[in-house]
Amino acid sequence: MFISFEGTEGVGKSTLIQGVAAHLDTLKIEYILTREPGGTPLAEQIRGLLLTPDGEKIAPACELLLLFAARAQHISQVIEPALAAGKWVLCDRFVDASFAYQCGGRALPTAQVQVLVDQFVSVLPNKTFWLDAPVEIGMARASKRGALDRFEQERLEFFERVRVVYTERAVAESNRIIRVDATLAASDVLKAVLNHL
Amino acid sequence: MFISFEGTEGVGKSTLIQGVAAHLDTLKIEYILTREPGGTPLAEQIRGLLLTPDGEKIAPACELLLLFAARAQHISQVIEPALAAGKWVLCDRFVDASFAYQCGGRALPTAQVQVLVDQFVSVLPNKTFWLDAPVEIGMARASKRGALDRFEQERLEFFERVRVVYTERAVAESNRIIRVDATLAASDVLKAVLNHL
Ligand SMILES: Nc1ncnc2c1ncn2[C@@H]1O[C@H](COP(=O)(O)OP(=O)(O)OP(=O)(O)O)[C@@H](O)[C@H]1O
Ligand SMILES: Nc1ncnc2c1ncn2[C@@H]1O[C@H](COP(=O)(O)OP(=O)(O)OP(=O)(O)O)[C@@H](O)[C@H]1O
Ligand SMILES: [Mg+2]
Ligand SMILES: [Mg+2]
Repeated sequence: MFISFEGTEGVGKSTLIQGVAAHLDTLKIEYILTREPGGTPLAEQIRGLLLTPDGEKIAPACELLLLFAARAQHISQVIEPALAAGKWVLCDRFVDASFAYQCGGRALPTAQVQVLVDQFVSVLPNKTFWLDAPVEIGMARASKRGALDRFEQERLEFFERVRVVYTERAVAESNRIIRVDATLAASDVLKAVLNHL
Repeated sequence: MFISFEGTEGVGKSTLIQGVAAHLDTLKIEYILTREPGGTPLAEQIRGLLLTPDGEKIAPACELLLLFAARAQHISQVIEPALAAGKWVLCDRFVDASFAYQCGGRALPTAQVQVLVDQFVSVLPNKTFWLDAPVEIGMARASKRGALDRFEQERLEFFERVRVVYTERAVAESNRIIRVDATLAASDVLKAVLNHL
């Protein structure tokens, strides 16, 4: 079982994943927790290049290819071995984030992302929980955390475009992507997700 | 005029490029010297991830995508602006190296590289000088330089496969790719290249 968690900044992904993990513990189900971009030492170094805001301006195509480089490493070193060993994989963001942020946010053509998925992504999530809430709500929650990374420094309109693509994908892939109302209390978000599993 | 220089390790690319640059100086032609992977601060950081031999094993697909991430940045920040300003671009390795090293050396499918070229490479060299010599000759020349990077640590057979792909590409794109006999003295290699320009 490969499950990804999606949504704009601060919407509650990390909080939810901890709750799901605690539930799997009580069921004695083996799982790994991982995240994108990242999940291996090299992929985390790539994450560092992507999120550090003080370097040169990163071309959108470079950003996209760095994300998929980290993903290729993550899939081959972490996700595929865990699934082969019968473990569940709980992943904080996966391919839907690339469509949402790079096509929605950065306005890259969908074909550029689709081609990378087709050629380089050998395994897709069985289920994806998309935490949806007005962008301002997530930003208000996240703003308590201090310094903003390179994505968090984007303007509201950027995240509105991200949310539009999440919405479109949830409609187009309604079997896989489950929309969860992230304006609810964290305990109710968790309950809704556990009901689905 | 966008010119790339290709060939296996130590075959004389950097030496040749210095000679061509000196000749352009005498002709008062404006040019930039650059290289791949690299050419911008971020792309050089990506080069660092690619060449440092002591990290985790890099998946071939991750390596390929990192190379194209660096290339996307290099094209948008350096190559396109230089060409737009009417300067010549002399580039140490470009897309042919990805076919040669990643498809030949690493045995990735040609389609994976071709798709990246089609989607992310907006400008191709007008001329490519391929310095060809038996692999052992280049390795003997390069071995004088000390510590080997991650590619240089590969075995002879790896570079033989790289050379086979260079050979195939030079046949398939004979208008663009000029084979130069790199067993000649450096001064004769330079003369042959200047004759073509
Ligand atoms: N349903 C909720 N209601 C109110 N606050 C919440 C809820 N879920 C999480 N929070 C709080 O909002 C903040 C952001 O939550 P969290 O870090 O889980 O979001 P995230 O989606 O992982 O953010 P990021 O995209 O930055 O990783 C935290 O302080 C968290 O405690
Ligand atoms: N035609 C030549 N004949 C003999 N020696 C040469 C010739 N060209 C270059 N050399 C010497 O071989 C060594 C490697 O040359 P150079 O660094 O130019 O190769 P390179 O192709 O740029 O290598 P790399 O692939 O590692 O960047 C240097 O010591 C250089 O002086
Ligand atoms: Mg989080
Ligand atoms: Mg060199």
